[in-house]
Amino acid sequence: MSKPFKRILLTGAAGGLGKVLRDRIKPWADVVRLSDLADLGEAREGEEIVQCDLADKAAVMKMMEGVDAVLHFGGISVEAPFDAILSANIVGTANLYEAVHKHGVRRVVFASSNHAIGFYKQTEVIDADDPVRPDTMYGVSKCFGENLSRYYFDRFGIETVCIRIGSSFPEPQSARMLVTYFSYDDLVESLRCSLMTAKVGHTILFGMSDNPAKWWDNRKAGHLGFVAKDSSTKFNGMFPPSGNYPAADDVGATYQGGPFILNGPQFG
Amino acid sequence: MSKPFKRILLTGAAGGLGKVLRDRIKPWADVVRLSDLADLGEAREGEEIVQCDLADKAAVMKMMEGVDAVLHFGGISVEAPFDAILSANIVGTANLYEAVHKHGVRRVVFASSNHAIGFYKQTEVIDADDPVRPDTMYGVSKCFGENLSRYYFDRFGIETVCIRIGSSFPEPQSARMLVTYFSYDDLVESLRCSLMTAKVGHTILFGMSDNPAKWWDNRKAGHLGFVAKDSSTKFNGMFPPSGNYPAADDVGATYQGGPFILNGPQFG
Amino acid sequence: MSKPFKRILLTGAAGGLGKVLRDRIKPWADVVRLSDLADLGEAREGEEIVQCDLADKAAVMKMMEGVDAVLHFGGISVEAPFDAILSANIVGTANLYEAVHKHGVRRVVFASSNHAIGFYKQTEVIDADDPVRPDTMYGVSKCFGENLSRYYFDRFGIETVCIRIGSSFPEPQSARMLVTYFSYDDLVESLRCSLMTAKVGHTILFGMSDNPAKWWDNRKAGHLGFVAKDSSTKFNGMFPPSGNYPAADDVGATYQGGPFILNGPQFG
Amino acid sequence: MSKPFKRILLTGAAGGLGKVLRDRIKPWADVVRLSDLADLGEAREGEEIVQCDLADKAAVMKMMEGVDAVLHFGGISVEAPFDAILSANIVGTANLYEAVHKHGVRRVVFASSNHAIGFYKQTEVIDADDPVRPDTMYGVSKCFGENLSRYYFDRFGIETVCIRIGSSFPEPQSARMLVTYFSYDDLVESLRCSLMTAKVGHTILFGMSDNPAKWWDNRKAGHLGFVAKDSSTKFNGMFPPSGNYPAADDVGATYQGGPFILNGPQFG
Amino acid sequence: MSKPFKRILLTGAAGGLGKVLRDRIKPWADVVRLSDLADLGEAREGEEIVQCDLADKAAVMKMMEGVDAVLHFGGISVEAPFDAILSANIVGTANLYEAVHKHGVRRVVFASSNHAIGFYKQTEVIDADDPVRPDTMYGVSKCFGENLSRYYFDRFGIETVCIRIGSSFPEPQSARMLVTYFSYDDLVESLRCSLMTAKVGHTILFGMSDNPAKWWDNRKAGHLGFVAKDSSTKFNGMFPPSGNYPAADDVGATYQGGPFILNGPQFG
Amino acid sequence: MSKPFKRILLTGAAGGLGKVLRDRIKPWADVVRLSDLADLGEAREGEEIVQCDLADKAAVMKMMEGVDAVLHFGGISVEAPFDAILSANIVGTANLYEAVHKHGVRRVVFASSNHAIGFYKQTEVIDADDPVRPDTMYGVSKCFGENLSRYYFDRFGIETVCIRIGSSFPEPQSARMLVTYFSYDDLVESLRCSLMTAKVGHTILFGMSDNPAKWWDNRKAGHLGFVAKDSSTKFNGMFPPSGNYPAADDVGATYQGGPFILNGPQFG
Repeated sequence: MSKPFKRILLTGAAGGLGKVLRDRIKPWADVVRLSDLADLGEAREGEEIVQCDLADKAAVMKMMEGVDAVLHFGGISVEAPFDAILSANIVGTANLYEAVHKHGVRRVVFASSNHAIGFYKQTEVIDADDPVRPDTMYGVSKCFGENLSRYYFDRFGIETVCIRIGSSFPEPQSARMLVTYFSYDDLVESLRCSLMTAKVGHTILFGMSDNPAKWWDNRKAGHLGFVAKDSSTKFNGMFPPSGNYPAADDVGATYQGGPFILNGPQFG
Repeated sequence: MSKPFKRILLTGAAGGLGKVLRDRIKPWADVVRLSDLADLGEAREGEEIVQCDLADKAAVMKMMEGVDAVLHFGGISVEAPFDAILSANIVGTANLYEAVHKHGVRRVVFASSNHAIGFYKQTEVIDADDPVRPDTMYGVSKCFGENLSRYYFDRFGIETVCIRIGSSFPEPQSARMLVTYFSYDDLVESLRCSLMTAKVGHTILFGMSDNPAKWWDNRKAGHLGFVAKDSSTKFNGMFPPSGNYPAADDVGATYQGGPFILNGPQFG
Repeated sequence: MSKPFKRILLTGAAGGLGKVLRDRIKPWADVVRLSDLADLGEAREGEEIVQCDLADKAAVMKMMEGVDAVLHFGGISVEAPFDAILSANIVGTANLYEAVHKHGVRRVVFASSNHAIGFYKQTEVIDADDPVRPDTMYGVSKCFGENLSRYYFDRFGIETVCIRIGSSFPEPQSARMLVTYFSYDDLVESLRCSLMTAKVGHTILFGMSDNPAKWWDNRKAGHLGFVAKDSSTKFNGMFPPSGNYPAADDVGATYQGGPFILNGPQFG
Repeated sequence: MSKPFKRILLTGAAGGLGKVLRDRIKPWADVVRLSDLADLGEAREGEEIVQCDLADKAAVMKMMEGVDAVLHFGGISVEAPFDAILSANIVGTANLYEAVHKHGVRRVVFASSNHAIGFYKQTEVIDADDPVRPDTMYGVSKCFGENLSRYYFDRFGIETVCIRIGSSFPEPQSARMLVTYFSYDDLVESLRCSLMTAKVGHTILFGMSDNPAKWWDNRKAGHLGFVAKDSSTKFNGMFPPSGNYPAADDVGATYQGGPFILNGPQFG
Repeated sequence: MSKPFKRILLTGAAGGLGKVLRDRIKPWADVVRLSDLADLGEAREGEEIVQCDLADKAAVMKMMEGVDAVLHFGGISVEAPFDAILSANIVGTANLYEAVHKHGVRRVVFASSNHAIGFYKQTEVIDADDPVRPDTMYGVSKCFGENLSRYYFDRFGIETVCIRIGSSFPEPQSARMLVTYFSYDDLVESLRCSLMTAKVGHTILFGMSDNPAKWWDNRKAGHLGFVAKDSSTKFNGMFPPSGNYPAADDVGATYQGGPFILNGPQFG
Repeated sequence: MSKPFKRILLTGAAGGLGKVLRDRIKPWADVVRLSDLADLGEAREGEEIVQCDLADKAAVMKMMEGVDAVLHFGGISVEAPFDAILSANIVGTANLYEAVHKHGVRRVVFASSNHAIGFYKQTEVIDADDPVRPDTMYGVSKCFGENLSRYYFDRFGIETVCIRIGSSFPEPQSARMLVTYFSYDDLVESLRCSLMTAKVGHTILFGMSDNPAKWWDNRKAGHLGFVAKDSSTKFNGMFPPSGNYPAADDVGATYQGGPFILNGPQFG
């Protein structure tokens, strides 16, 4: 039986989540084109390897040839000096969308981040229409990607699902991540829904498992049909409460972005 | 043990859903009065048969005698020439409510339709307070019924639950219906809740099973206590994605009403 | 200098507001085609007279030839037996829109009514997106026109401004009308804005002057550029308060529709 | 292993819910200080008993010494003469918060009540930001506690979760309570979440199990991570519907507060 | 010509605003009954003087005899020891409403305060449905009055307009008051509208003139017909900006309640 | 008398609006520092001239010395090749905020643009909390500046008013600009309010005069006290309606951004 797509491009394939996705997305396309600035090793069956700097417009344009759909996980995924963020996340994403447009690609999944809205408080519950509140220059760069993809949808009809990824690790690394936990299986399912739904327009999805505590309401992305199967409850007990409430000025306990907020901005 | 109601009237009893309901609603009433323009055969035990044209005011008035509650599934359930829609759905429903009022019936369940809001996009999620956007003259006639029942509630306290039925068939007939699927069991449960809840005022319920993709938010009907038990996930695989995204002007893939929209309007 | 339109059709030209408009709309079109079921007398300069029953589909179709834009004030403007409402307001408006569609007319102004939302309380403030709450069968028929025009816009791009006319008389006839007063000048200005704005989509405008007390918020029609110039303050003193508050069950003082609500429904 | 808290104060420990909680909260603190106006018997292991009139400011101040966190279930939990409500619920709660402030306690769970919003209709679904609509002087006193705790949070950062408790009994005592049912296990879990979440700010939680019919939407308290495990469905059949709809003026069937509304106000 | 009311009761008649109102409300009633704890001097023509402690239930009950409508300006209008607030504002207002109920009075205007919502930031714009955020115990007591009056409306239909008075002085006393300024003329006009409108239900009005900067949106009170005539622009220049922005922790410049917030709470 | 500020920096001083502002802002500061990439001629009295490329981080840092407040009108104000937008608007604004932060400047007014939301339709009315919908890469860059300034406010308390300037020209140049017209006087007044208000937090203001047609609702910026004095009504007659409605696919008549949308994106 034929697979839904001929060729899916995965950028950032050498990154943490890229490695997780490399095998899991194979059932969706005849060929998975893997791209990264870093070395990706040998192409395995059903793979193509393209080493590419996203800031190199010509290289990005070439990489897009023959692509059906893009999973854009490339760029920098932590706070970093602004020059680096600018090059990888801002210029890189602009190059990517221009190539998407020129090559007639019709669907992108953009790995956005909870740090696009990390300055909401942990006592607030928000949805996809609430204004962004980035918590780092990294977060600002993710907002740029969301806005850019909105523009390409309104202007050219190129559809994007922006997934504001919470904490996608094998297990939570702090009490905060019991709320933001996004299992690999749920991540993959969210990508599957984002690619397979007939029309998605421009959708913002909060990437989280079915955790008991919720800061984010995904109702406005209901049309994607994404239903999380995992939950952070299985990690109950990893971060037992001490009864010592965090101080009023404890950033990590106050804002949804957590201690990550303290990393920025970084200027030379 | 006595049944909750003495006599429930089911209009449209010879229609697709009417046949499904004929036996299933019997536990709720001593007598089920079945009505249709078409022949309904012999009355079985616990049944009364009234062949009736809803456009015939006197006949409708007579049919309402001794009735406790009404399940109004009568009329035309597809797009049709406006004269037919006018007679069956507009005049018919007006006659029905006038009879309900004159005979002191206090509760109606009105089979409205997703085509009352079919011009919302498949990438939008709406609730009961969003403005209607009918997608056919049929849809316009269902809006008429909703507005009329609102009037009879505000004016006379006659309570109605309008169920905007999605796709109530044994199984989905298109990928779109994976979203709008409304199993027979869930339909019956929604009717049970609509009849048995002590007060319902004027409520709009979206008739859908617990499908993974959702265009409709039923929170404002939470007081009905309707909890869908079925899901279209059991039909996964019937409509596998092809990776060929629908064209920008593909009505069936763009609007919630689907290709049905293309059927109207029909004027002589 | 040429006028903006070649031919504007005014239905209901023999009615109360039709007579007011007959002369005032002349600057907008080379020809004003006046239509009514009643006799309109001789055509004056720049006028065409078409006596027409809106329920007569063929006659309506013929009346629409060569028309640029329609001011639909025809039909019954009070509560009446349902058969009459049905014929004039429901069938009549359906015929009108079908003719509009067939003849390629691109803009309609529909004289809707505050009675489409008359069952809101006088202590509530609503806007165009709040659900309708008709207060009579007349009000239900106005909702039908609003929904029908929404359908023709979504389906065919035919633009309509629905003006929910308050109380458009030379002067208020009750204390309630100090709130709903809509001066003739303001009515005309609202029509001018509705016709002259480049794009109106499907807009609902509450037709009221700049009265001190307000039940309706027109913010969502801000794109029309309608700014009321008159106010009911000039009638202060016509209905001095007595200190005798109306009884809790005084319909006229409780609901926005006022005592009009008590007129319906009327069935034979 | 050490327990999260050193000393939790439970007021109203001799009341209906206080007795339920006495043992269940022990795992959370080295010492549970139990307080009531009524006799509480002997202190058991891990308990301290403080007989205290909440209206006695000095006594309340003393009772708060060494306390980490407060579960404020004290006061009158039914409609009563206003003097009694005033003393126990208004003065008592003011004394409690002043003591909380003076002793540096940082977290309170306040047993508010559905009667703070009991005048919403049973056909309405509300959330934590909807205006209060108390249904008795008791309900007014609960609103006072909610507002007071909001003030102490805004002014001093003292965090409170106000739980608007539905019907927390072994089993529902009326059909209404199938909607408001709040099992003891779910109550305890809601307290656990309210105490253990790192930051709660000022949160209003509706205290209900996962019952099929819902008048209250807890989405805005999603950060608490409270997930009800029980449901009133197990009591299906206790209150079978009769088909006799309640009268329009049946308070118990009309408002969320139920027949309780009829108890007030009580003045000497 | 007869005046609208037979007898209006003004409580707090010896207070700052009471003195302003004493003469201005005379055109509305045959008799103005003036009440205060303090001495009010001799009754002038058309006046009755009742010295009364609002905390004295019997005295309040007696004071209410023969009254048509109440302007409740009595009680303490600044932050004060809680015992005083409790007695004057909480007990006093409870006594007042019980007397209103017993004597069949149907309309109250309650002098609430911006301090009921003073913990919103000066960069926020709120309306009547936003949750209260009192800034002092005085503010908490005003919330009590608002909730109590809501209860008496829902329970007995007694109508109240709660005016959250901004800064009603001859002229602003700080830059903050350029926003909250409420001229005496506008105050009187708001009372007139509150008394004369046929139905007001339970309405919350923000008491402010038409000042250029606005923290409060009165749209939901549009039915009152209150239109402010004055503006603080006439005081431009009284508080020229210095370019020295207030510090981040400057309460007076941060919250809508201003430095008043620092006065509370006061416990013995 | 001393002026409010010691030194205001105006970037983009050689641009169209920069020239307008050069003299008008002088009353607000002892010194106005004017900056542009282009030549600004001789410094006049009370002026300092700094020729500066905003993309030059060191130069921007130096330019910020001794500055009290910034009016950031620099960068490119039309659609342009992305490289140019990137350098002037993205890197330039990042450099500016970093310098603002390092030099302790506490207030910025950022010249954003209606092109940040230009893909809303001309039949929609939006406010400051609606999601952005940029209409060009220029618009995307303005969103970047808005998000960046939000970040610097949340992270460091640096306050910014983002003014989404409509069409600030001596007179409208198209019918669309009758809606977006923003007179020079109103622009200056909006700047004055943005600088002089004690606290502004992070505010988005739509920059428009009091034009009759409105696409934008400024209620959420009410705390600024900005009241437009001018209106485009004085240009009535410049763009008389023709009755030829624009085609369905006429971008200039469909979207708020107008024909400007067609300029982008521009890639090399």
